[in-house]
Amino acid sequence: MIVSPQSMSFAQPLALQSGASIRDYALAYETYGTLNAERSNAVLICHALNASHHVAGTYAGQERSQGWWDSMIGPGKPVDTDRFFVIGVNNLGSCFGSTGPMHVNPESGRIYGADFPVVTVEDWVNAQARLLDQLGIGTLAAVMGGSLGGMQALSWTLQYPQRVRHAVVIASAPNLNAENIAFNEVARRAIVTDPDFHGGHFYEHGAVPRRGLRIARMIGHITYLSDDVMNAKFGRQLREGLDLRAGAAPPPGDTAAAADGARRSAGAYNYTLQDVEFQIESYLRYQGDKFSEYFDANTYLLITRALDYFDPALRHGGNLARALAVATAKFLLVSFSTDWRFSPKRSREIVKALLDNRRDVTYAEIDAPHGHDAFLLEDARYLALVRAYFDRIAQEQAP
Amino acid sequence: MIVSPQSMSFAQPLALQSGASIRDYALAYETYGTLNAERSNAVLICHALNASHHVAGTYAGQERSQGWWDSMIGPGKPVDTDRFFVIGVNNLGSCFGSTGPMHVNPESGRIYGADFPVVTVEDWVNAQARLLDQLGIGTLAAVMGGSLGGMQALSWTLQYPQRVRHAVVIASAPNLNAENIAFNEVARRAIVTDPDFHGGHFYEHGAVPRRGLRIARMIGHITYLSDDVMNAKFGRQLREGLDLRAGAAPPPGDTAAAADGARRSAGAYNYTLQDVEFQIESYLRYQGDKFSEYFDANTYLLITRALDYFDPALRHGGNLARALAVATAKFLLVSFSTDWRFSPKRSREIVKALLDNRRDVTYAEIDAPHGHDAFLLEDARYLALVRAYFDRIAQEQAP
Repeated sequence: MIVSPQSMSFAQPLALQSGASIRDYALAYETYGTLNAERSNAVLICHALNASHHVAGTYAGQERSQGWWDSMIGPGKPVDTDRFFVIGVNNLGSCFGSTGPMHVNPESGRIYGADFPVVTVEDWVNAQARLLDQLGIGTLAAVMGGSLGGMQALSWTLQYPQRVRHAVVIASAPNLNAENIAFNEVARRAIVTDPDFHGGHFYEHGAVPRRGLRIARMIGHITYLSDDVMNAKFGRQLREGLDLRAGAAPPPGDTAAAADGARRSAGAYNYTLQDVEFQIESYLRYQGDKFSEYFDANTYLLITRALDYFDPALRHGGNLARALAVATAKFLLVSFSTDWRFSPKRSREIVKALLDNRRDVTYAEIDAPHGHDAFLLEDARYLALVRAYFDRIAQEQAP
Repeated sequence: MIVSPQSMSFAQPLALQSGASIRDYALAYETYGTLNAERSNAVLICHALNASHHVAGTYAGQERSQGWWDSMIGPGKPVDTDRFFVIGVNNLGSCFGSTGPMHVNPESGRIYGADFPVVTVEDWVNAQARLLDQLGIGTLAAVMGGSLGGMQALSWTLQYPQRVRHAVVIASAPNLNAENIAFNEVARRAIVTDPDFHGGHFYEHGAVPRRGLRIARMIGHITYLSDDVMNAKFGRQLREGLDLRAGAAPPPGDTAAAADGARRSAGAYNYTLQDVEFQIESYLRYQGDKFSEYFDANTYLLITRALDYFDPALRHGGNLARALAVATAKFLLVSFSTDWRFSPKRSREIVKALLDNRRDVTYAEIDAPHGHDAFLLEDARYLALVRAYFDRIAQEQAP
């Protein structure tokens, strides 16, 4: 499936939850499949921290440009673009095409930087609703997302209950717990205290707070993976893939490695404080470096804060069931057994609150070793489950 | 109990595991109680990352100077200094009195900084053994430690099996897993990439890499606590202790808070990316700031690397039972149910390897909500258990 990004401009101010507003902004988006005559087969995909409107398919001439949920969405896939009209949208404040901190503030003529307004999950949903208005879509067959994307899907059912028939909320939570907020805060502090951050106006200084972004991404990566999968993938393996434990020989023919092994036979270690010794270190540094080259530091602050702030029960005395009472959609919730960032327990809180309201809820806890990352990976049972759920949606649509 | 620190100098070089050696070093230590005539009642306490030789008691004229394990050690306490002669020692490379990176390298006449040799758990045990030699102590009634201190206690039984009658290994592990190493690595990267680190020679620049130390400590704190205890202590409470959920009023008479509450009634948040919004953020920043004022950055690198490197099974093909076959001591192992940094599973690996060797092992898994920190806290069952174990040691000593 060859796809191409589009952009929609909005001149009218959008009122934000903070009391501020934003005008003259644009949203980058993509669509896959065809909107039917009844305009009833639209599915909105909401993204998490590090993703974008490029959800599925590839860009012409760019073979390795698969969208971030390409295993899930496309012709014949669980969310089948032969049947559904799927919309991916980049959120306001992100750094992949929609208006964000790297763009010019029409009020001042300067790059926004730290002056970009704080945006929330609710603000994103409002912006997405305006995009749907422009696309002529009144009601969504489904809204779907994982992690922070799941929070948006949930929020859709509360902000626009009449516009959502189904909500698919994957590896998500009704709010962040203290530990989640704590990890976000450490990542933000790493960015903000990087001397290259310049209070968020680093663009004008020709600087990028790469050190902080690297640390932020390394912390993120640890929390996306499970303990099990880290041990399976990396364990205590030393940096060059050498396992110098007694009985473990270097790969045959690898004389450099063998020599190195001999040199280090005393203890198998290089005894270094700053160089890479273990493979997990090398992996994390690589992920951090890569991320720091494309991700915007102010966007990182904005998006982690949107995560922190999301808490639909807040205005209802902490009572989630009361907060969800306005939802009329049918729900699919999915969690993954080894996800400690958004654990199954948190999904079950949403399920319980929906059941307290006698809503139509399907819930599956997938036994997967991959931690939070599992929601992006190809797990046969997970994909089959989503496929079956969208089959049901399609059947409901059938005349 | 009023105590005072002492120091012992060692002119002779100590050969280190890395192949390097160190000479003209000193160890800070303290002793509590009296060594008996048979010299058979000595108990060595090994410290973890952030602690020192000041294990118990207070310094004269400094009321709030309790040692870090004062709940455990002292007259009439579980490790009773009326019966045992207890020794606390600051490890080589630490920053609380023993020779470390802040001291002058006798080879160069310059401050060691990044040139301080890499030290391991095994090196520390060798240095501790030399200290005991000087103190005239051949055999320890017990060696005891938590976390990294537990690794030292375990290593004592392997390096000097004849010199240890009992080993008390608390909240520890036979090695770090990939996730543990990953957290250490992120903390080290935060320090090393701080522009004030100057490759480890920051002393000469009159600088301190405080940003990095703050981040390192914040990460550490998250991993010391359990998810449960963080939710119980902080949850999603907002910064000033205000809970602005519907139905939760500001404290009576607090008009400033009430006004602030009214101002923020739209959403209870301040909508800020860089200021503290949640109490957990305030707590972590405070812990990071405090730590960065007293802890040495090079010591942080050294000690986390010693943790990474510890792996007695490495030289035995990964077979822990074979590695522990040389131990002859009796063992008490303790773990805590919510400790995800050194989980009960890791303690059970040690227990199993010892049982495979038919060693005398007592193991207790304490149901405690406090995560890894539990080993330093006053839990009645935990303290009673250690007390009972040391009663047994005392009875064995009795003529």
